[in-house]
Amino acid sequence: MHARKKIEIIVEAVRAEAVTLLLDRMGATGWTILPVLAGRGHQGIRRAGDPGGVDDNVLVLCITSAEVASRVLAAEGELLGARPAIVTLSDCQVLRADHF
Amino acid sequence: MHARKKIEIIVEAVRAEAVTLLLDRMGATGWTILPVLAGRGHQGIRRAGDPGGVDDNVLVLCITSAEVASRVLAAEGELLGARPAIVTLSDCQVLRADHF
Amino acid sequence: MHARKKIEIIVEAVRAEAVTLLLDRMGATGWTILPVLAGRGHQGIRRAGDPGGVDDNVLVLCITSAEVASRVLAAEGELLGARPAIVTLSDCQVLRADHF
Repeated sequence: MHARKKIEIIVEAVRAEAVTLLLDRMGATGWTILPVLAGRGHQGIRRAGDPGGVDDNVLVLCITSAEVASRVLAAEGELLGARPAIVTLSDCQVLRADHF
Repeated sequence: MHARKKIEIIVEAVRAEAVTLLLDRMGATGWTILPVLAGRGHQGIRRAGDPGGVDDNVLVLCITSAEVASRVLAAEGELLGARPAIVTLSDCQVLRADHF
Repeated sequence: MHARKKIEIIVEAVRAEAVTLLLDRMGATGWTILPVLAGRGHQGIRRAGDPGGVDDNVLVLCITSAEVASRVLAAEGELLGARPAIVTLSDCQVLRADHF
C-alpha cells in the first residue's frame, strides 16, 4: 500500500465543475462525485430536489499525491471561489501507486 | 489546515433526524446526508427501494471539533437509540477553521 | 472507541457483487454501497445514467478489523479482477467493537 491524500469537497452541484477543473489542472489523475441528499451548514438546511434545485450539493472525492493535494489547497482563493460548504483533507493508502 | 474530527453514521433514513438533532444539540455547525444503495450488516442485506422502504439507510457525515465529537460519542445511549448500523470517527483537516 | 480499518472501493456497479462476495468471504461483518454520480479516471469521464449504464460506478465501504483488511488486500489479484477504479485503506475508530 502507498500513502496518498484524500480530498473531500462538498459543493453546490452547479459549481462542481469548477472544482473538478481545478483538480484536473493541479494534476489529479481522477475524481469521483457522490450525490448528497440533504445538509445543514452556514446557510441553513438544504435538501436535494427542493424547488429550484440549483441548491443541490454533491461530494467531490479525490485521491491524490501529497504534492497535488498541496497544490490544490494552495489554490485556496480559486477553490473557495466555488463556495464549497466543506473542504477536508485526510490520509489514506492506495493499492496501486501508479494510478494516483 | 486545521485538525478536526469526521463522524460518519449509517442509519435508517427514518431515524436520521434523531441523529442530526443530536449533532445539532451537541454543537455541530453542520452535517451532510448521503444516500445508500445497499448494505449488509447484523440484520442481513438491505437495498434501497425494497418494498416497505422504511429500511432505506443513509450516511450522516459530520465534520466537527474534537470537543463536539467527544460530546456526541459520550451521548452513546441516545446515539445508539437511533440504532445506527455504523458509527465511525476519524481524523481530518479542514481549510477554514471558522466553519467547524 | 476501538481502532478499525475503513476500506473504500470504487467499482462498476455490475462488478460490485464480486467485491462484496470477496469481503464476505474474507470475514467482513458488513459493507455499505453508495451511489456515484460521475467520475474521471484512467478510462476518462463517466456519468451515471449514460446510455448503456453498465458503466455506472458505486462506492463500496467496509469497516473491518486490521486482520480482515489485510486478508482483503492480500487477495489483490481477485480484488483487482473486479477492475476497481480506486481501492483505499484508512484508519478509523468505531463505537461498538463487537460489530466489526
